[in-house]
Amino acid sequence: MDEKNIRSGADYDAIQEQRTDELTRLLDSRDMKQLQRRMEELNEFDVAEFLSEIKDNRMPMVYRLLSKETAAEVFANFDAPEQEQIINSITDSELAGLLEELYVDDAVDMMEELPANVVKRVMRTATPQTRALINQYLRYPENSAGSIMTSEFVDLKKYMNVRESLARIRRIGEDKETIYVCFVISADRHLEGIVTVKDLLLADDEDVVEDLMDRNVIFASTTEDQESVMETFSDYDLMALPVVDKEGRLVGIVTVDDVMDVMEQEATEDIEKMAGIMPSDKPYSRTSPQEIWKNRIPWLLFLMLSATFTSMILTNFENMLAVQAALVAFIPMLMGTGGNSGAQASTAVIRSLSLGDIEPRDALQVMWKEWRVALLCGVTLAAVNFVKMLLVDGMLLGNDGVTVAVAAVVSLSIVFIVMFAKVVGSMLPILAERIGVDPAVMANPLISTVTDAVSLLIYIYIAKLILHI
Amino acid sequence: MDEKNIRSGADYDAIQEQRTDELTRLLDSRDMKQLQRRMEELNEFDVAEFLSEIKDNRMPMVYRLLSKETAAEVFANFDAPEQEQIINSITDSELAGLLEELYVDDAVDMMEELPANVVKRVMRTATPQTRALINQYLRYPENSAGSIMTSEFVDLKKYMNVRESLARIRRIGEDKETIYVCFVISADRHLEGIVTVKDLLLADDEDVVEDLMDRNVIFASTTEDQESVMETFSDYDLMALPVVDKEGRLVGIVTVDDVMDVMEQEATEDIEKMAGIMPSDKPYSRTSPQEIWKNRIPWLLFLMLSATFTSMILTNFENMLAVQAALVAFIPMLMGTGGNSGAQASTAVIRSLSLGDIEPRDALQVMWKEWRVALLCGVTLAAVNFVKMLLVDGMLLGNDGVTVAVAAVVSLSIVFIVMFAKVVGSMLPILAERIGVDPAVMANPLISTVTDAVSLLIYIYIAKLILHI
Repeated sequence: MDEKNIRSGADYDAIQEQRTDELTRLLDSRDMKQLQRRMEELNEFDVAEFLSEIKDNRMPMVYRLLSKETAAEVFANFDAPEQEQIINSITDSELAGLLEELYVDDAVDMMEELPANVVKRVMRTATPQTRALINQYLRYPENSAGSIMTSEFVDLKKYMNVRESLARIRRIGEDKETIYVCFVISADRHLEGIVTVKDLLLADDEDVVEDLMDRNVIFASTTEDQESVMETFSDYDLMALPVVDKEGRLVGIVTVDDVMDVMEQEATEDIEKMAGIMPSDKPYSRTSPQEIWKNRIPWLLFLMLSATFTSMILTNFENMLAVQAALVAFIPMLMGTGGNSGAQASTAVIRSLSLGDIEPRDALQVMWKEWRVALLCGVTLAAVNFVKMLLVDGMLLGNDGVTVAVAAVVSLSIVFIVMFAKVVGSMLPILAERIGVDPAVMANPLISTVTDAVSLLIYIYIAKLILHI
Repeated sequence: MDEKNIRSGADYDAIQEQRTDELTRLLDSRDMKQLQRRMEELNEFDVAEFLSEIKDNRMPMVYRLLSKETAAEVFANFDAPEQEQIINSITDSELAGLLEELYVDDAVDMMEELPANVVKRVMRTATPQTRALINQYLRYPENSAGSIMTSEFVDLKKYMNVRESLARIRRIGEDKETIYVCFVISADRHLEGIVTVKDLLLADDEDVVEDLMDRNVIFASTTEDQESVMETFSDYDLMALPVVDKEGRLVGIVTVDDVMDVMEQEATEDIEKMAGIMPSDKPYSRTSPQEIWKNRIPWLLFLMLSATFTSMILTNFENMLAVQAALVAFIPMLMGTGGNSGAQASTAVIRSLSLGDIEPRDALQVMWKEWRVALLCGVTLAAVNFVKMLLVDGMLLGNDGVTVAVAAVVSLSIVFIVMFAKVVGSMLPILAERIGVDPAVMANPLISTVTDAVSLLIYIYIAKLILHI
């Protein structure tokens, strides 16, 4: 095995850099023959990475060295800016050729990202069939099964035998996104079953598809959300999921590589929502400061304005706090502890809901569990805090205001604040799910704001009770 | 197509409930023949779900109705408690049979979850070969490529022709986790190339594997982390990734269904770390309050104790704050805004780092981008806050302390706090990545604590400057 071709993910970066260097050397010395040969040997993902690194106008020239088939695969691996650069540098007939080579779902992905004038040119050069297909796909709602599916699948009829089926796969398989799962359809394109190449290979030549196929087909409808497609995929360990229209006719399939992209995208969205960012499909590196601002400012504004409640509470008890000035010093710590406790609970519950580990109907068990966790956490924190306040704040830092009574007030408040934060933090996402809102928007910042105000009230009432002020 | 067999992810829950009801009715009426027939028709995931719903001791009895092959597949879909229940209810020879039917990676997964005494019994009943395999797998570090791989793959020799290769696949393919990617190895088991069933089917019978195989093989080493395996998979859109040992010999493969599980697990870990939870492999619903407490208390304690800095700052400036008591009311809002702004930036950067969208060397571009985002966000928030303080706090709520000067102090502080929080929030994860620490542990709570103290200092100094106190 040629050592240069061996590569593992661990030292992937080093090897990729080496390869880029080698290709760049070939490019700089204008050894186009050798460059072409090396690029055809490499994986199309690596070629796309190398081409993206060439920042000047030599990139389209190098791209043209690729064979038609490799070129399409490399193109599908490009980000939007490189795709645009290529489209702008090739002739109409080359563009038409490229479109025919691309899988329809890759072409649709591209159209969704390109500027309108480029899209127009692409649509003009496409063949009528391709244009019709792309148009049809673009009509499906964003993030629906219809928008991520591809129509390049192998269809069989149930009366075919294994030999005929394999012959058909050999004949039409070249351009299909997967040949390993074949879809058995009736004359009016209704899905009747699926059969895998494994089933076919392990059967006898004369066996009939009808006897081999699995009739218990798991499928999606075109308008179904990609998140639910993803769940079906990972629950059932599928290789390909058929997509049917309202009339039950097979119109496309979703393959596992598309689903992996969706998984990444959905996890990113959840993470963003939890941090109070409006989700966007664009990667961070290609989002402008104005767009980032648009995604972040709504929550910041909302959270800033809702802090008016804490301001009101503090203003109301101004006089009381003036009497016991030492109490003010611990307000940030109490709010922080409440916010962090709540965020832990809400994060755990949001994630478990989205993985299907818990359901809204488990609300009572979750509350009971969080109640016990909160008691454990609250008591631990309170004990540590009591000792720390007396030793560090009182003796070490010489803060006279920190008496045993004040330390008791703060510590007791911690217990109640943590209990409140954990129970509310775990229940709000479940409530959201129940009323049909995305639990991830019951984001940590939102829960912090609720717990901030309540923490303050708990603290003030416990202080009143114990310190008699 | 039988309507009852059709199902899509969207109405999945409803249909599953219906099916569970149907099966439960059959079970209650003791119609075992029909129950058996229905279970064999269903997907093994659904059968596992149904069996998990039977909470009493009839479950093992129903499980025994399944054919040997289905039983193994259903078993692999069980969670640990159900697996244990089954193992405890079957005879040693049944257990041995079950082990032979399981894929090795599923058996290893099971062993990692079961209590020690059950593991002992399982190991005792396994055949020597299976035991050796399981032992070998259990030796790989947790979350390494070795621990998630399976040894059930199809190997070919490069001098075989297509007819011979397909014959071999037909002969040994039955028990392999995938037959669609075949691995070409030398006499001493070194990996020489890969060839897909698609390549074989589309070639002529007499073509030789050597001419069809792809020598440019992407592979992982046994000790490589599963996160890097996952990245390789999604970068290259693979179906199966070969795993080689230190000597370059092929020892196993990782298939796409394993990787999807890994993706879920890694996203969960990142999310947990960002919320200040120590990650655990166990689902929330099966984690005891004590274990949850252990995962959550370290960060809570650390964050509570580090709030000592904010307490010290507040105590130091107690007298100044007593003069302008109105200032205290806005401390929680300023800290909250700083924390939320920082969390947004750190979340965006952590996620982009883990998706490979940005690299540590992009630090300067990221800082420059966040600087502009912060300016936009800071100015927007300050403007809204200025108007809001004068109108709501000053006029509506009649807080006399809120003068134009105080509103100016708070608003100006917002600008600087947001700038500080966003730049620090975006840089800390990059710094972590550079020094080889997981960026996700530069968690939002940690950044909040840093920004809390700095926000307070910014506020106090601006107040001094403008209000001359």
